[in-house]
Amino acid sequence: MTAIDADPALPAPVADLLSQWADIASLGSAAAVLEWDQETQMAGKGQAGRGRALAVLAGIRHERLTDPALADAIEAAAEHAEPGSLLDVHIREARREVRHASALPEELARQIAAQESRSLAAWQQARADDDFDGFVPVLAEMVGLVTEKADALVAAGIADRRYDALLDEYEPGATEAELVPLLGSLRDELSPIVKAVADSGVQIDESAALGDFPGPAQEAFGRMVAETMGYDFEAGRLDESAHPFTTSFGVRDVRITWRFEPDDFRPGLFGIMHEAGHALYEQGIDPDLEATPAGNAVSLGIHESQSRLWENLVGRSRPFWEWALPHWHEAFPHKADVTLDQLWPALHTVRPSLIRVEADEVTYNLHVVARFEIERALFAGEITVPELSDRWDATYEELLGIRPPSPADGVLQDIHWSMGAFGYFPTYTLGNVVNAQLFEAAERDLGDLGAQFRNGELGPLLGWLRDRIHRHGRRYTAAELIEQATGAPLTTDAFLRHIRSTVHEAYGVGA
Amino acid sequence: MTAIDADPALPAPVADLLSQWADIASLGSAAAVLEWDQETQMAGKGQAGRGRALAVLAGIRHERLTDPALADAIEAAAEHAEPGSLLDVHIREARREVRHASALPEELARQIAAQESRSLAAWQQARADDDFDGFVPVLAEMVGLVTEKADALVAAGIADRRYDALLDEYEPGATEAELVPLLGSLRDELSPIVKAVADSGVQIDESAALGDFPGPAQEAFGRMVAETMGYDFEAGRLDESAHPFTTSFGVRDVRITWRFEPDDFRPGLFGIMHEAGHALYEQGIDPDLEATPAGNAVSLGIHESQSRLWENLVGRSRPFWEWALPHWHEAFPHKADVTLDQLWPALHTVRPSLIRVEADEVTYNLHVVARFEIERALFAGEITVPELSDRWDATYEELLGIRPPSPADGVLQDIHWSMGAFGYFPTYTLGNVVNAQLFEAAERDLGDLGAQFRNGELGPLLGWLRDRIHRHGRRYTAAELIEQATGAPLTTDAFLRHIRSTVHEAYGVGA
Repeated sequence: MTAIDADPALPAPVADLLSQWADIASLGSAAAVLEWDQETQMAGKGQAGRGRALAVLAGIRHERLTDPALADAIEAAAEHAEPGSLLDVHIREARREVRHASALPEELARQIAAQESRSLAAWQQARADDDFDGFVPVLAEMVGLVTEKADALVAAGIADRRYDALLDEYEPGATEAELVPLLGSLRDELSPIVKAVADSGVQIDESAALGDFPGPAQEAFGRMVAETMGYDFEAGRLDESAHPFTTSFGVRDVRITWRFEPDDFRPGLFGIMHEAGHALYEQGIDPDLEATPAGNAVSLGIHESQSRLWENLVGRSRPFWEWALPHWHEAFPHKADVTLDQLWPALHTVRPSLIRVEADEVTYNLHVVARFEIERALFAGEITVPELSDRWDATYEELLGIRPPSPADGVLQDIHWSMGAFGYFPTYTLGNVVNAQLFEAAERDLGDLGAQFRNGELGPLLGWLRDRIHRHGRRYTAAELIEQATGAPLTTDAFLRHIRSTVHEAYGVGA
Repeated sequence: MTAIDADPALPAPVADLLSQWADIASLGSAAAVLEWDQETQMAGKGQAGRGRALAVLAGIRHERLTDPALADAIEAAAEHAEPGSLLDVHIREARREVRHASALPEELARQIAAQESRSLAAWQQARADDDFDGFVPVLAEMVGLVTEKADALVAAGIADRRYDALLDEYEPGATEAELVPLLGSLRDELSPIVKAVADSGVQIDESAALGDFPGPAQEAFGRMVAETMGYDFEAGRLDESAHPFTTSFGVRDVRITWRFEPDDFRPGLFGIMHEAGHALYEQGIDPDLEATPAGNAVSLGIHESQSRLWENLVGRSRPFWEWALPHWHEAFPHKADVTLDQLWPALHTVRPSLIRVEADEVTYNLHVVARFEIERALFAGEITVPELSDRWDATYEELLGIRPPSPADGVLQDIHWSMGAFGYFPTYTLGNVVNAQLFEAAERDLGDLGAQFRNGELGPLLGWLRDRIHRHGRRYTAAELIEQATGAPLTTDAFLRHIRSTVHEAYGVGA
């Protein structure tokens, strides 16, 4: 296949590499369109055909990534790469992807892609039927395939251990050994806060956030907020789906989905802000990097730092609501007499709950810790797939003191495992930790962000994030980006400062 | 790539062929999803990336079709094929597709795919701006590429002449030499009818069909009708698009689109019935043929016979409306006093008009004749792309006696040319001729169809079409299907009988 977009000024081997890579990126983009359609548009009977089409695309993408012609192109291009240059980054990232793909037998890659569609449909059905046992055989097949994949990656020397191999896909370079103390220490710091809240006896009145919130009004308000954040609807769209997500087909087509509760506006709005935060990252990658090896988001932890920053540090802040409240009154006229002092605490309740995506900022990480521990046990062979639901319930009882009444609110709540995404959840907590450190740094550079938010000015913050994070794609590693943007390596300090101050304001405990 | 769906009972070479073919079909299906999304969902800025992705998919599909491994598989499988067997059909159709693809240089195939996206976007813009001149350069590039394609097909011996090569893609085996007398004779027969209607002085009162028809009510009524026809919404969906179309990703995901006028219910409803007619064909192909060489619709003429049959012979018939009218009254309460005798004539006005898709049954074919003559002149080198708009206006004046006020209602009205679909229009008229012959045959076999329609029973007719046409895919040629289904070769007799009887009833002229 010949290049369609190659720049004639580039040395031929570099142009050849970029051309091959653009084709591979287009295959990924096509698959992403098919997946988006599957989750937002497709009728039920399309499932089997869609699974076949996705498997074929995945198979071809895998063929291309493992084609000796690509490996040759990378090495030929490498001879033109100055150390530290963008080309050098392309070479590094291309080698990384090829190494990962080559470690995976083609037949296995194809089986995983086919199983993803089947498993996703089975999960949707199982969740609707509240029936974990019916889902077990399909999930077990997926776990078997993912285990094969992890073993293949370990055998290729990409990671030392099965679970690390899985982590590496989502958070390059992350290891279980590093994450255990990080998540453990967060649990140790957050547990006393949760306990102090419980002991305070304070019951936040949430009635301001509850009532009749018609879907169309929620959607219109959410769209307005997303636009104010800077999300470009001419380069994306918003649709409903069972599980909200963001998908990118390229920097100019980045789509988000949401779901809403008719009697509580919070899941819908914060879901949209969360996904729009992800989307701002994807829409903000330097267009010149599009479809190149350096043109993807650097890691899911950094990705989640963007979504959580907009959701929590902007969307739940007092200054943001000083601007947003009049618009909210207009959107929901029966709430026209709700004051900021009534609404704000309802955005900051701390309460152990069953559903991760609806959890508060404090307990959220305990949901992640639960999944992290269960996944590790599964891939260490300590538990089996049929035991997942009981283990889930027991872990929730231990960490959060509550027990799901049935699998729909327990082990079946998340889409991730059905799609074979094990090792993904810890990136959520990394995102929480990173976002607070970024926000403090942005405020140091930009002055009083609250004063800007009060005027609905979210542009300076977006500009800072674009400059420090978004545009770079994979030019720097996650750790490099954090250090360049904030002047320091990642610690949990900023996150814990944020949590303590919020909880103090909402509950009058701690400091 | 290895098979995922191969039946272990098949001889290995046959299984190999079917497996390779299923992959190729999946690539086509993936491209169809991307195209559907582009026309119904995608925001404007996604265009460039979508064009690249479609070009890559087209390129890979072309690579696969021209891969010597496929040619080898076809010939190896051919050794197992009994004459007249299904495998024999697979071999014939696979050879045909490979011959077509091999005649086309890969780079050209890729350029055409990329140009399709650009050209489609430019057409949408030009139509919105009512600006043909701005569209000329993009269209000229497309015409140039299509000319190259036609020349390549001629050079490969697939057709003797440029325009025949284009026709053959949509109507296998059709030639300009055959179509000229067919379309010419229809024009000769229909012209006196149009003249007699004009001379009659009868003005049909269309007020029953005009008024306030809210989009959601039109959509709900259209969906109900499509369901009654037998369209399976669990294996498809209905969306809005600028130009209504049907697309199939496989027999279990066949989607239709529509557009509507707020003050005239006819374009919306008959558009839905038309596209649902197409979709019934695609949903009715034997599932065992899916993704095999024999698994596609046999020709666009046959396809159009299905859409026009449901739109005109069912949807505009008195018996259908005896059933439909109470539902229509419910959907549009301000029309509750409209009687069948008021409504029926408004479905059968005969009047020269500018827009093909809204034309009546009688003048419709003159719209097709106009395009047929202009296309032939273009590919014979008699006119150039910049001259198309003037030629269009002159041809309309000559054939229909009216002149478009501007290009949006003239040369820019159809999507086809923007996508490089030259040689496509004549299949519309073939469809008109075929549908009437099929309908007469169905009535011979099933008894009084009108009596069934009066009860909303459309199932027997669908069953007959499924049995005689839909399920066979490409097992028989279009000519064979028509002769098997109707007992006679194709003639214009049934169509002209239908037109004469309808016009007589509506206008009291002819017989």
